[in-house]
Amino acid sequence: MARKPVWTSIAATLEGEIAAEHYRAGDKLPTEAVLAARFGVNRHTVRRALADLSERGITRSRRGAGVFVEAPPAEYPIGRRVRFHRNIAATGRLPEKRVLRVETRLCNRDEAAALGLAPGTSVIVYEGLSLAGGTPIAHFESVFPEARVPDLADALTETSSVTEALRMNGIADFTRAETRLMAERASATQALHLRLREGDPLIKSLSVNVCPEGRPIERGTTWFAGERVTLTVAPE
Amino acid sequence: MARKPVWTSIAATLEGEIAAEHYRAGDKLPTEAVLAARFGVNRHTVRRALADLSERGITRSRRGAGVFVEAPPAEYPIGRRVRFHRNIAATGRLPEKRVLRVETRLCNRDEAAALGLAPGTSVIVYEGLSLAGGTPIAHFESVFPEARVPDLADALTETSSVTEALRMNGIADFTRAETRLMAERASATQALHLRLREGDPLIKSLSVNVCPEGRPIERGTTWFAGERVTLTVAPE
Repeated sequence: MARKPVWTSIAATLEGEIAAEHYRAGDKLPTEAVLAARFGVNRHTVRRALADLSERGITRSRRGAGVFVEAPPAEYPIGRRVRFHRNIAATGRLPEKRVLRVETRLCNRDEAAALGLAPGTSVIVYEGLSLAGGTPIAHFESVFPEARVPDLADALTETSSVTEALRMNGIADFTRAETRLMAERASATQALHLRLREGDPLIKSLSVNVCPEGRPIERGTTWFAGERVTLTVAPE
Repeated sequence: MARKPVWTSIAATLEGEIAAEHYRAGDKLPTEAVLAARFGVNRHTVRRALADLSERGITRSRRGAGVFVEAPPAEYPIGRRVRFHRNIAATGRLPEKRVLRVETRLCNRDEAAALGLAPGTSVIVYEGLSLAGGTPIAHFESVFPEARVPDLADALTETSSVTEALRMNGIADFTRAETRLMAERASATQALHLRLREGDPLIKSLSVNVCPEGRPIERGTTWFAGERVTLTVAPE
């Protein structure tokens, strides 16, 4: 029987130590030189093991900075009821929203079309960050028709949760009518907010949530950190 | 009544000319200097009009190369029955698949898990490109359990369509059990295949199609050119 190459055993050892949380998500692995000394091999062999871990998404190599342990991507179901807190809590991480801006302004053409409003109608805009276990996973901007939810701005500032703030405004339930997904590069400000590099890939989601009687209540634009989140679509 | 700024009228004129296909998808617009002379304004005003077109996704500015007309993204529904030919034909474009590789090999761990096979079972691998109206929109690799569809390799080489090739192997229908979406950067070879730049954002889709009785028949990995395709998810 052919012997397995040494690098596979080094990769398996490191993978086991990561699984056992000896090294945790975000941690930097020891340098090639340190690992070569530890395993009694040359740096070429270490490099082959590290490349294998990277290819399988267990670590990520950042040029000039080192090799870091990746967090497994959060799973985010895009179904009939998309609820951030429930989605993230289901993955065992702490869901958290950070308010960047709540303001009232006139809607633009796209927003008017998505929400079924006359152009120039007043809308409430909520911009913020979604975090899972302290790691930012998305940047979002949601737009609501002000006439339907006049106290939403105060409610959002109080709770940060859209579901809660809508409930405080008499909207007890809403469902997802449509989701449109594209890929985009992170802008400089998005990179800062999401702790990415400018140009990193994002999934941009354009969505409309509607009330039980079918009237649109929220037009959402969300930019998901593309390597930290897996959107899942299951036929219901 | 306040007069509208001049740039809005320039943007509207250019938008109309693009809608009328005076300038078509992929065409380069005239330079700022040429447009400034044409409209009798300074370059600052032209730049404001071009920025508006870019913000609305009608054009795209490429640093150092100029401003190009964008093709409207192809809409691609991710529903219970995902069919490439039907999806693209519905947008009025010619659907086309280009075979890069059809081969038979042993499955890896992920493929075995997705298809419910024992590790090391024989699978047929189909790698190719999906085009819409001559423009590549996706790079894909699909894996099928060979024992279920022993003549699939020949059928794929003959037809290039997965739906057709499965039908020729007795699989008359299949439905989507699951789709998982992430964002990734285009590799150098993907950039060549998809006519993008290396590092451009892609949506990576991992999917499983199952036969009516529930057994997995295809595990697909598709990399969509993120700015040319909009994936749409509608609750059914």
